[in-house]
Amino acid sequence: MPRPLPDRAATFVREVRSFTDEHIVPLEPKLGALGFVGLKPELDRLRDEVKKRGLWLPFLPTEVGGQGLSLLEYAHVSEALGRSPVAHYVFNCQAPDVGNMELLHLFGTDAQKAQYLLPLARGEIRSSFGMTEPEHAGSNPVWLSTRARKDGSDYVIDGHKWFTTGFEGSSFCIVMAVTDPDAPAHMRASQILVPTSTPGLRMVRNLPVMGEAGGDWASHAEIVLEGVRVPQDHRLGPEGAGFMLAQERLGPGRIHHAMRWIGVAERCLELLCQYAIRRELAPGKPLATRDTVQAWIAESRAEIDASRLLVLDAAEQMDREGQHAARDAISVVKFYVANMLDRVMDRALQVHGGLGMLDDTPIAWWYRHERAARIYDGPDEVHKASLAKRILARHGMKKRE
Amino acid sequence: MPRPLPDRAATFVREVRSFTDEHIVPLEPKLGALGFVGLKPELDRLRDEVKKRGLWLPFLPTEVGGQGLSLLEYAHVSEALGRSPVAHYVFNCQAPDVGNMELLHLFGTDAQKAQYLLPLARGEIRSSFGMTEPEHAGSNPVWLSTRARKDGSDYVIDGHKWFTTGFEGSSFCIVMAVTDPDAPAHMRASQILVPTSTPGLRMVRNLPVMGEAGGDWASHAEIVLEGVRVPQDHRLGPEGAGFMLAQERLGPGRIHHAMRWIGVAERCLELLCQYAIRRELAPGKPLATRDTVQAWIAESRAEIDASRLLVLDAAEQMDREGQHAARDAISVVKFYVANMLDRVMDRALQVHGGLGMLDDTPIAWWYRHERAARIYDGPDEVHKASLAKRILARHGMKKRE
Amino acid sequence: MPRPLPDRAATFVREVRSFTDEHIVPLEPKLGALGFVGLKPELDRLRDEVKKRGLWLPFLPTEVGGQGLSLLEYAHVSEALGRSPVAHYVFNCQAPDVGNMELLHLFGTDAQKAQYLLPLARGEIRSSFGMTEPEHAGSNPVWLSTRARKDGSDYVIDGHKWFTTGFEGSSFCIVMAVTDPDAPAHMRASQILVPTSTPGLRMVRNLPVMGEAGGDWASHAEIVLEGVRVPQDHRLGPEGAGFMLAQERLGPGRIHHAMRWIGVAERCLELLCQYAIRRELAPGKPLATRDTVQAWIAESRAEIDASRLLVLDAAEQMDREGQHAARDAISVVKFYVANMLDRVMDRALQVHGGLGMLDDTPIAWWYRHERAARIYDGPDEVHKASLAKRILARHGMKKRE
Amino acid sequence: MPRPLPDRAATFVREVRSFTDEHIVPLEPKLGALGFVGLKPELDRLRDEVKKRGLWLPFLPTEVGGQGLSLLEYAHVSEALGRSPVAHYVFNCQAPDVGNMELLHLFGTDAQKAQYLLPLARGEIRSSFGMTEPEHAGSNPVWLSTRARKDGSDYVIDGHKWFTTGFEGSSFCIVMAVTDPDAPAHMRASQILVPTSTPGLRMVRNLPVMGEAGGDWASHAEIVLEGVRVPQDHRLGPEGAGFMLAQERLGPGRIHHAMRWIGVAERCLELLCQYAIRRELAPGKPLATRDTVQAWIAESRAEIDASRLLVLDAAEQMDREGQHAARDAISVVKFYVANMLDRVMDRALQVHGGLGMLDDTPIAWWYRHERAARIYDGPDEVHKASLAKRILARHGMKKRE
Repeated sequence: MPRPLPDRAATFVREVRSFTDEHIVPLEPKLGALGFVGLKPELDRLRDEVKKRGLWLPFLPTEVGGQGLSLLEYAHVSEALGRSPVAHYVFNCQAPDVGNMELLHLFGTDAQKAQYLLPLARGEIRSSFGMTEPEHAGSNPVWLSTRARKDGSDYVIDGHKWFTTGFEGSSFCIVMAVTDPDAPAHMRASQILVPTSTPGLRMVRNLPVMGEAGGDWASHAEIVLEGVRVPQDHRLGPEGAGFMLAQERLGPGRIHHAMRWIGVAERCLELLCQYAIRRELAPGKPLATRDTVQAWIAESRAEIDASRLLVLDAAEQMDREGQHAARDAISVVKFYVANMLDRVMDRALQVHGGLGMLDDTPIAWWYRHERAARIYDGPDEVHKASLAKRILARHGMKKRE
Repeated sequence: MPRPLPDRAATFVREVRSFTDEHIVPLEPKLGALGFVGLKPELDRLRDEVKKRGLWLPFLPTEVGGQGLSLLEYAHVSEALGRSPVAHYVFNCQAPDVGNMELLHLFGTDAQKAQYLLPLARGEIRSSFGMTEPEHAGSNPVWLSTRARKDGSDYVIDGHKWFTTGFEGSSFCIVMAVTDPDAPAHMRASQILVPTSTPGLRMVRNLPVMGEAGGDWASHAEIVLEGVRVPQDHRLGPEGAGFMLAQERLGPGRIHHAMRWIGVAERCLELLCQYAIRRELAPGKPLATRDTVQAWIAESRAEIDASRLLVLDAAEQMDREGQHAARDAISVVKFYVANMLDRVMDRALQVHGGLGMLDDTPIAWWYRHERAARIYDGPDEVHKASLAKRILARHGMKKRE
Repeated sequence: MPRPLPDRAATFVREVRSFTDEHIVPLEPKLGALGFVGLKPELDRLRDEVKKRGLWLPFLPTEVGGQGLSLLEYAHVSEALGRSPVAHYVFNCQAPDVGNMELLHLFGTDAQKAQYLLPLARGEIRSSFGMTEPEHAGSNPVWLSTRARKDGSDYVIDGHKWFTTGFEGSSFCIVMAVTDPDAPAHMRASQILVPTSTPGLRMVRNLPVMGEAGGDWASHAEIVLEGVRVPQDHRLGPEGAGFMLAQERLGPGRIHHAMRWIGVAERCLELLCQYAIRRELAPGKPLATRDTVQAWIAESRAEIDASRLLVLDAAEQMDREGQHAARDAISVVKFYVANMLDRVMDRALQVHGGLGMLDDTPIAWWYRHERAARIYDGPDEVHKASLAKRILARHGMKKRE
Repeated sequence: MPRPLPDRAATFVREVRSFTDEHIVPLEPKLGALGFVGLKPELDRLRDEVKKRGLWLPFLPTEVGGQGLSLLEYAHVSEALGRSPVAHYVFNCQAPDVGNMELLHLFGTDAQKAQYLLPLARGEIRSSFGMTEPEHAGSNPVWLSTRARKDGSDYVIDGHKWFTTGFEGSSFCIVMAVTDPDAPAHMRASQILVPTSTPGLRMVRNLPVMGEAGGDWASHAEIVLEGVRVPQDHRLGPEGAGFMLAQERLGPGRIHHAMRWIGVAERCLELLCQYAIRRELAPGKPLATRDTVQAWIAESRAEIDASRLLVLDAAEQMDREGQHAARDAISVVKFYVANMLDRVMDRALQVHGGLGMLDDTPIAWWYRHERAARIYDGPDEVHKASLAKRILARHGMKKRE
């Protein structure tokens, strides 16, 4: 890498990676059989071990119990954790808690921090984030029907959300709701902290994602809010700042995801190579001797390396100049890395043949679940169009509606 | 299409398609929740209705209760059935029974036909086919470890198979086993009819395919055979003909599969178009107005049409000149159509956004399960290499080992 | 092929192909050195031979000296001629004369036929077609600036055209000009026969296409028309019918081109195979043993076969039901085949390595000149969008401006 | 970029870029008409200007008249020069002189430096490099037929070379010839400095590359050597070191090329954006409003950025650890960047429509000439295979012949 990590961070990343390979990867076969819910007790024991080793909550400052890594440093950690489907959970880095903690840390009041951030940071509770609505395209984040009306000192919220990750079992949900429908499009909504025990907040179902409704953290709920009443001091940040906060959250989130995807891709490539060496087409003639397989290895290597450089470059830009300055780089990262992941997973699966279709390796799990990478936080098409429009504007293109 | 179907066949295909759209497609939402096993009673009632309407078992001759369609005609039927994941089952055209019935019809003794073919043809029992072994690449069909040794008038079989589709609940399994290890590679194995109740034949597990072990017909078993004893008259065809029979079975099987994939792709494209019209990016601006989406529709249309022409052309060649003469066309069909399917499913899923990841449409089911199309019955790479070698030989290339 | 050609046509195609391989292919090395202009005398001698053998002008009816083939039959001829860059010329099938002759045959007055069609049909003169204008996107054929104003019994034409193929040395040019700017968009223009000797008609330059301005038929001119005066009886078809005639001309033209591209692709694939067998990476190890090369051969075979089936299917639809009914098929053919050609040429060039960059084989010539296939007569993007809009309309999409 | 250039180098790069845009880009239209030979006098005047400004020969140390940039720094310069087809020549950075100067600088004797390096460095003479032979695949650099036999104190050389860039008009050619056919494969050949006036050295032709034989520096010769006699002190480096020196030369060469390609790609993307804004599909509706075009812009941006990061990372590795340590990175760069270039050129051409086919922009020139990027210095397939083999070896794969 062009800019090597400082020693302390490099050591940290190495430890995270060793822990993942030694303690989490071996649980993978059980994951298929037991699911996250069945495996949770074991994972929670590992969480204690992670805390003991001083690896807990790497991306948050030390004052709330984290390790205080920069975004660039945490990016490397996220890659290391990406090597196994449940490693982020074990280090308390799982979405959506990671983003929720960042928001609370940056924008929460002292009371909000005490009540919500600190227990989250200690791993005692979990949280969720309710933004996308079934009725509107998620790619247009300012188009929302959920309404929060003021009533005395409360908000009364009515709405319908889905893809609310980890809602089941979460203690509170950050709900994006329109607080002023007459404001300009980007200032209509606010984010409101809603305890999941609040009357009127109801889970319709855990969404059946590629055959799995899952449970607890490993689930994505469809929820309804009917006359859900919370005090106005549960609003996060100023009124109308919902969209701005969501953007604030998404920038680093895209870096985290992209580095996780790189971890997934590296692991897929390792599995591909190992299997290609082991599996024989005929006695003494392993798959790895085929130049089609060799071409896939080389192309995967190139595309993964390109992805990592792009992500680290974007992270460095964000650390240095902030999210706005880095938005071209973030757009590039989002669609480039998600598509790289698709290709690498597909090659790994193809080399494994029938075995690739089975949950005997994590490839099939990633193949079906990480397909979502090209969709959430803005589908490929949206990022490409918005990047191109900014480039064209710099070439003198006039704005159109 | 260049060569239109005769009237009788065209009417038949239309009826199959209407039946599928009216009676089977509406069951799809239940399929996600109940699985095939839960849905089976309802599907079996539909089977009775199919029999009443004279649509049952289209590909087999009338003397065994079928409708006597040619391969070309049945190809159209298979496309119509492909529109829904369980339609082939309802018409008794599901793999591996369809291939097993063809083998028994062509090569079975009268006793074998009476005992195995007729109950299958009536839909009273199901069957399975045990060929692939975990220890050897499925792409090299002559490399098998399963052994059938003669002992008096019996065979005693030892071996290990997987991807034995529908083994659970089947009455018998056609097992491919080496009967003469010293014969030339393509004449070592025979196919043997093994009742699943035979001692020593044991199911290890239903393979967890993309998160689903499934059950009954909708499952793929790993099985072991330890000292499994069956009379030698349970061999199908001559000794050493196992590989030849497997090839005989695969040719039409690839046509059936390819046309089923086209049915899947057509349905995906319909869903894509309908959703693109319905789903708005902003009020009054549906997805279908995006030229990226339009390009995907046009490319899908082109690739599906190309696929259908290729398959029908291959089917016609097979009807006219036999499987050997058509083998280039069959290879082309196998890899071209499987890859077309991948692209069309991917586009349909992407247009559906988050919804595309859910079992609320059949797209997610196909996306994870039909990924296998590029693997089974010969992965892309094997078909490409063997086709190219035949082409190069006609240009004067000398054979190499 | 699904629908074999009638015997007479099959024999005709075989003869065309033999003639091309025996008499025209051997001239290719000279083409690079001498260019079309230098080679013309030799080609004109071959034209006489073609006439003697009764192969001249295959696509026009016998009453004007042609062979009266159907579109489907001529499609096969165009493939055979596509095998060499100048074969269409030798058989008097070269664009734009082929389209001009069809227009004159269908829509010309007796006087126009006598003066323009018959000498063209005999190969005594050449013609050109002036449609595209540098100022407007060729993909929007109704947006033209060239004006023909009536003055007494004459038209006086002012305008600017480019990509006027074969203008240099042609006797007349069919010029598309706006005759009524106030008519609805598709009825504004007319086609007018303009002798190239008419005062005010001037060639600015032969366009430097990929390094070659070429000459005579093998050139594409930029021309200006300043006060060019021709009698109104030189209008082809009714006033305002220019666009309709252009469409009429384009339908079969796209079939001709597409089959020519298939001929090019087949020839490239042959050259690829032959070179891959001949060229050794190391002693005794020809390129053809690499499975990457084999994969390219197989993919090219599949894509060429798919292309041919699509084109013949479209041609048959046009012969049977007319151009309007076949317009989906024509759009598919236009972009699918042009892109197939790109890929096959690229693979052939890559296998040839450095040699592929040289004019020592025809591959480099096609690589640079046939890149235009994805652009002229409607670029990929236009055909995809218009096809998709028709498909979406059938799914209920409402029309937008 | 992660690691910003030191100020001095950044200023240098900016000056090179301004000079290129102000003085060389405006000559492009003449290049099409006059060719390199016709433009040479003007370019040679610009060379004087470059010297005056202290920008001459950036990659060589100051002691031979260069600017002493590191490889990483020069990489940026090469990108700036890549913006125009003849800019490298103007700065005396053109292949093959750049590589020849590096070799002479590193391995030349004092006499060789005085006679050959210094005049080259001053731009008074040009040189060429004779390696590839028509009879053997260039991708196998140890397979050569050219022989240099000792005779007294001389070598007598017989052989046949092609793709000897800039041979016409060069003062000497570095010829790769087998000096010991019995040595191990990688130690058979030596590099020998052969004045082009030596009897027996004859140019057969300038190769017709994509329609252009070119001339002087802008040409690629086929040459024969028949009894060519030079003193043994004209050998460069030790006997048998030819292959090692060629490798030494290729590593930085690939970085130079790759950065040049990035310059080409950036310029193509600029032209694409500018034209897309300017060109209207209909009044008021520029091409740039199409989301297909926007997707191409975004994808090009992503792929160019990825390419630059990969090249700079490789250059940094080479500066820091040497070529051997960086060979994986160099392989990645070679095939990834060459393919990126292909895609970006293709998109730029397609957006330009008919104009893209013309020499009116430099796109068509690059499209036909830079196609060679995927071939020379090792075709894609060779780099992919050798990279994959190294990766597989690290996973425990045993070596095969």
